[in-house]
Amino acid sequence: MVHAEASTFASGLTKKNVYAQVLEHSRGLFDGQRNWVCNLSNASSLLYHALHSLPSPSSAVNWCGFYVLDPTTQSQLLLGPFQGHVACQTIGFGRGVCGTAAATQTTQLVKDVEAFPGHIACDGASKSEIVVPIIQGGKVVAIIDIDCAELDGFDEDDKDALETIAALLAESCDF
Amino acid sequence: MVHAEASTFASGLTKKNVYAQVLEHSRGLFDGQRNWVCNLSNASSLLYHALHSLPSPSSAVNWCGFYVLDPTTQSQLLLGPFQGHVACQTIGFGRGVCGTAAATQTTQLVKDVEAFPGHIACDGASKSEIVVPIIQGGKVVAIIDIDCAELDGFDEDDKDALETIAALLAESCDF
Repeated sequence: MVHAEASTFASGLTKKNVYAQVLEHSRGLFDGQRNWVCNLSNASSLLYHALHSLPSPSSAVNWCGFYVLDPTTQSQLLLGPFQGHVACQTIGFGRGVCGTAAATQTTQLVKDVEAFPGHIACDGASKSEIVVPIIQGGKVVAIIDIDCAELDGFDEDDKDALETIAALLAESCDF
Repeated sequence: MVHAEASTFASGLTKKNVYAQVLEHSRGLFDGQRNWVCNLSNASSLLYHALHSLPSPSSAVNWCGFYVLDPTTQSQLLLGPFQGHVACQTIGFGRGVCGTAAATQTTQLVKDVEAFPGHIACDGASKSEIVVPIIQGGKVVAIIDIDCAELDGFDEDDKDALETIAALLAESCDF
């Protein structure tokens, strides 16, 4: 199998169809592989390329990746695998969009990051953001973080699909 | 600091100048942060965007990232952070370009991957490749792997700069 094909998506598909393919390809990739670094690395690529196959605003996604629990500092997130420009290395629980998702264990769907109290501007190009916690045994072990260079880049379809992918990652990976 | 700016490179610089910037930004990012997942994630982004700021063939780099020692299987590489399309999860020492670099502890500069015995085609678009081992205490702990969609995508300047970056990663990260 040429693995790169897993992250090539036909154009003209609906967002729901594209996310269904991400889920199917993810299940295939995670089968027999529980290492979280390996699986999050491929998942960030799948998601980034899936969103870029869709029309605007999804195609304007400029950062797509993960933060994980920092093994050295309590209540802190540490940068994990991603696609996009260089990012902040650590984020405290409760700080910005990522830290709020981690502290509250709830998805943050932010239509305009400038309006979010305490937003951390890792990249000035980011206008909207969605952050979904990955929860294992009642504890946040990582978050999915996706930024968009357009306002209002994400909707309830993104939220539903990313929460399903977060649940699959929680089941499939040893964090 | 807006971190994304670290991976924005001016156009018109020489390859040596761009790599010097990668090295300088890397030193800044790794200062006070020894986690290998965090540092390799940012390093893959820095390198990918640095190469894309240069003229062809560097701008045709289609995969840029890392494999690390698999903690569960002896003499096997496991996919680490990267920029690009979905990739093979595991590679045995001695297999393909990556496995050869790991087994021999030497940089592999491959002008035409089709001519390399046992080449693993994770992505059919890749035409040339450079793989540089990251060595800690005499042991390969990871490799830098960069693919290019053009033949002859890398030269001695890439080799020298990437070996310097590999040495910095070996010094700066706890693997």
